Amino acid sequence: MSEPARQGQPLHDDVSALGFLLGTWAGEGQGKYATIKPFYYREEVSFGHTGKAFLTYVQRSWSTSDGRPLHAETGYWRVGAEGAVELVLAHPTGIAEVEEGTIDGNRLELSSRSIGLSSSAKPVTAISRSLWVDGDILRYKLAMAAFDQPAQQHLNAELHRIS
Amino acid sequence: MSEPARQGQPLHDDVSALGFLLGTWAGEGQGKYATIKPFYYREEVSFGHTGKAFLTYVQRSWSTSDGRPLHAETGYWRVGAEGAVELVLAHPTGIAEVEEGTIDGNRLELSSRSIGLSSSAKPVTAISRSLWVDGDILRYKLAMAAFDQPAQQHLNAELHRIS
Repeated sequence: MSEPARQGQPLHDDVSALGFLLGTWAGEGQGKYATIKPFYYREEVSFGHTGKAFLTYVQRSWSTSDGRPLHAETGYWRVGAEGAVELVLAHPTGIAEVEEGTIDGNRLELSSRSIGLSSSAKPVTAISRSLWVDGDILRYKLAMAAFDQPAQQHLNAELHRIS
Repeated sequence: MSEPARQGQPLHDDVSALGFLLGTWAGEGQGKYATIKPFYYREEVSFGHTGKAFLTYVQRSWSTSDGRPLHAETGYWRVGAEGAVELVLAHPTGIAEVEEGTIDGNRLELSSRSIGLSSSAKPVTAISRSLWVDGDILRYKLAMAAFDQPAQQHLNAELHRIS
């Protein structure tokens, strides 16, 4: 999308603590859940900014075995008044969620503060994620409570910076 | 973002009723609210798809007077089991919302089903929007309840298809 007036703006001070995320990351992950077979995926994630006090975020994943699209999510990352990290996120499965948590250097720990479900959404009730960057490697783990199952490890991936 | 395996997929049958939205639209709008001065904006909106049962959505707006970025929002459009339209949306102001409503030909009427707010979010409590396409023109109106104000007309715009 065009953004003629604001190309090349410096990162807003309010989100400087999240600057380590900026860029595009790609790699592979694995998923599991009590209700499904384990699976492997290829993933690409981009964090950007427009000079305002948030990061933009787009995620896509594809099946490693046959290339079909799997998950997607998109939203924004913010830093709250107390230095907390805030994530507002839409999922194409009908979920709009807010996660909040802590920033400790290059490591984030978040858990869902609210999960809104559309009428046809998958019944997800809680999500938490850890995300950390070490050099040009971004790793994350995600746990989820859904389908009447208790919160449990669902995803983990290792991504490499590609731009 | 790359999508090597699925370029050129046909639109999924489940979202065929939303096909009239596909494309990129640009134009101008005006905003007002009890707590602020009226303002004018330039806007660009894109609806896309990946072959799965949702449309992707990205919106950006800029001040007409000085080009500074104003609002943004991103998320997904779905069609529920009963033919209802569903919108899951993230706003960089700390809002993650679900809107639902009706599809009547090229006209959509939606209102918020849930609004999740991050700790530092603007206090928005309800959003409703009407959106309709007539040829290559997309018009919408948006009403909002926020900042302890009753629901009231906030935005209206007329966009033209540019791709």
